[in-house]
Amino acid sequence: MLHAIVMAGGSGTRFWPASRAALPKQLLPLAGDRTLLEDTAARLDGLVPAERIMVVTSARLLEAARRQLPQVPESGLVGEPCKRDTAPCIGLAALLVSRHDPDATMAVMPSDHVIRPSESFQAAIRQAAALVEARPGRLVTFGIRPTYPAEGFGYIQQGEPLTVGPGTAAAHTVARFREKPPASVAREYLAAGTYLWNAGIFVWKAKTILAALAERQPEMLERLARIAAAWDTPRRDHVFAAEFAAIKGISIDYAVLEHATDVAVIEAPFTWDDLGGWSAVARQRGADEHGNTIVGRHLGIDSTGTIVHAGDGHLVVTMGLANMLVVHTPDATLVAERTHEEAVRKVVAELETRGWNEYL
Amino acid sequence: MLHAIVMAGGSGTRFWPASRAALPKQLLPLAGDRTLLEDTAARLDGLVPAERIMVVTSARLLEAARRQLPQVPESGLVGEPCKRDTAPCIGLAALLVSRHDPDATMAVMPSDHVIRPSESFQAAIRQAAALVEARPGRLVTFGIRPTYPAEGFGYIQQGEPLTVGPGTAAAHTVARFREKPPASVAREYLAAGTYLWNAGIFVWKAKTILAALAERQPEMLERLARIAAAWDTPRRDHVFAAEFAAIKGISIDYAVLEHATDVAVIEAPFTWDDLGGWSAVARQRGADEHGNTIVGRHLGIDSTGTIVHAGDGHLVVTMGLANMLVVHTPDATLVAERTHEEAVRKVVAELETRGWNEYL
Repeated sequence: MLHAIVMAGGSGTRFWPASRAALPKQLLPLAGDRTLLEDTAARLDGLVPAERIMVVTSARLLEAARRQLPQVPESGLVGEPCKRDTAPCIGLAALLVSRHDPDATMAVMPSDHVIRPSESFQAAIRQAAALVEARPGRLVTFGIRPTYPAEGFGYIQQGEPLTVGPGTAAAHTVARFREKPPASVAREYLAAGTYLWNAGIFVWKAKTILAALAERQPEMLERLARIAAAWDTPRRDHVFAAEFAAIKGISIDYAVLEHATDVAVIEAPFTWDDLGGWSAVARQRGADEHGNTIVGRHLGIDSTGTIVHAGDGHLVVTMGLANMLVVHTPDATLVAERTHEEAVRKVVAELETRGWNEYL
Repeated sequence: MLHAIVMAGGSGTRFWPASRAALPKQLLPLAGDRTLLEDTAARLDGLVPAERIMVVTSARLLEAARRQLPQVPESGLVGEPCKRDTAPCIGLAALLVSRHDPDATMAVMPSDHVIRPSESFQAAIRQAAALVEARPGRLVTFGIRPTYPAEGFGYIQQGEPLTVGPGTAAAHTVARFREKPPASVAREYLAAGTYLWNAGIFVWKAKTILAALAERQPEMLERLARIAAAWDTPRRDHVFAAEFAAIKGISIDYAVLEHATDVAVIEAPFTWDDLGGWSAVARQRGADEHGNTIVGRHLGIDSTGTIVHAGDGHLVVTMGLANMLVVHTPDATLVAERTHEEAVRKVVAELETRGWNEYL
């Protein structure tokens, strides 16, 4: 059976002050009326029943995730006691779904990307699941056709084409995974036409990824197995905390994918945006006739190309602004040139340095 | 005896959203830790005892004025039921102080200007009072030596010099009052060197201004006399509301000063700022090494020449800003280019048009 594993442990700082340690990007309605997490779950509707959705987040976000996804049963909510990157997250999920479904196929996906339309996403996941059914030892990844020489994404180099049915997306073997490249290399990748952005979405058999982890990360898998063994006992929290903390964090890409031999990549037939900052939000939401993207109550006078994000009936008035960003929250407001968008992270770092933790 | 009449009925909109209909400029600590009204009262300390200070404000600001000036007795607080400009305000004050002090001298002053130092102000008022004692029919005004060809102020043209004692400010007869001039005329005034800005500060005998009003504004004075007659009766509020509303509003300049023959002007020996907007606030408060003027909790990254005004521990972060204005209040935030400062009034007008009265 197909299970969906939604990775929702992110703690990005690019949307501060809208996003906070206790309310990160995936829990915010950045791209529309629903939060990104809600959108991710809704995207699975008709593909995977709610009982086969597992949301893996951090323990302190568990309550918020529970509120946003009332359809997901309690058994589908996992709160990690600490951050250990994607490999332990995926390994634990594989162990947990295998308990009741030893032949489970897992579709693993982030919770904070914008993917449209759902139909194309579901078709692509079904296609990946078919590739896995055809060859259970295969790991399937998804690649996004690059539109610019991005330095911020990992790349997947396409190898040999795989025979696919009519009406399905292009699929290839993976020649090689490539880390985030410098600008010159990114331009080469773009020009070559055979490199795709790694979307961080995977489909595989639970037993396949567990076998790979047993080979490449035996100690990690041993600790994860102890956690899974304690899962339905009163010792769960204790074992989870102790064993998970002892794991060395590593991504599934580094831990497994880069060493695997039977990996396929499907070129995503859906639009994809990892929503890396406020300009991406504006791209998703669109702009009014003045080029402004407004969420909340706003009065604009001679303002263009400006993003305003406010809530709770707070009025933001902008006058004479061009290409600015105004984010209002009850206890903190950010006003920035949009060209400084990337530097929002610096703000969070500076707040930490100053010990102004109440704003983090 | 010398009485101080503080006119505190202003309802300026240039400081929105910090200033509101219910909390106008004079009630805000714009230039320092004290409000402008508190500063105005403190400036009188040692010149006029609190029992001889009369604060005339609008009825709905009376409670706020009372809280800010606990030293002023209840009899010194007058709340106008509606706005009727300065002549009725001054006429009523003249009637009220005359009841117990028929020979009273009044120093009339706005409550929302920044004047420093107090010593020079007090010396100038004493000098004016001496001019009035020497010739009780005289009206004394104060002029500010222009520093630029301002179009926003009225001007006083100096006439013949008056003989003054050593160590006192220059005093002249008034040749003529001039309305706010166009730019070309303002430049002529500046070049001539004999035109001063009208500071809106006056010293005269109560009986003198009442005689002038009796001649130029007999109906107004009649209505004011009915209010004064009812002042110590249970009918005060009723008569005040009915008679004051029936008065045609007019400034003391138009009603009396422009027609008077015996008017003197003292060139102010103090620094004066009518605090016409946020840049004036920055001028009064000074700027840090980045040219920023900050009130409240702020983190600035690559920000220069920017004014930030916030309260209640709300954090404002500015990034990449140059010459901007950020004013945060609990329910509304203004972000503007400082060059648009004058247009803040447009915001208030637009809010009224939209019926967003909760922000006014």
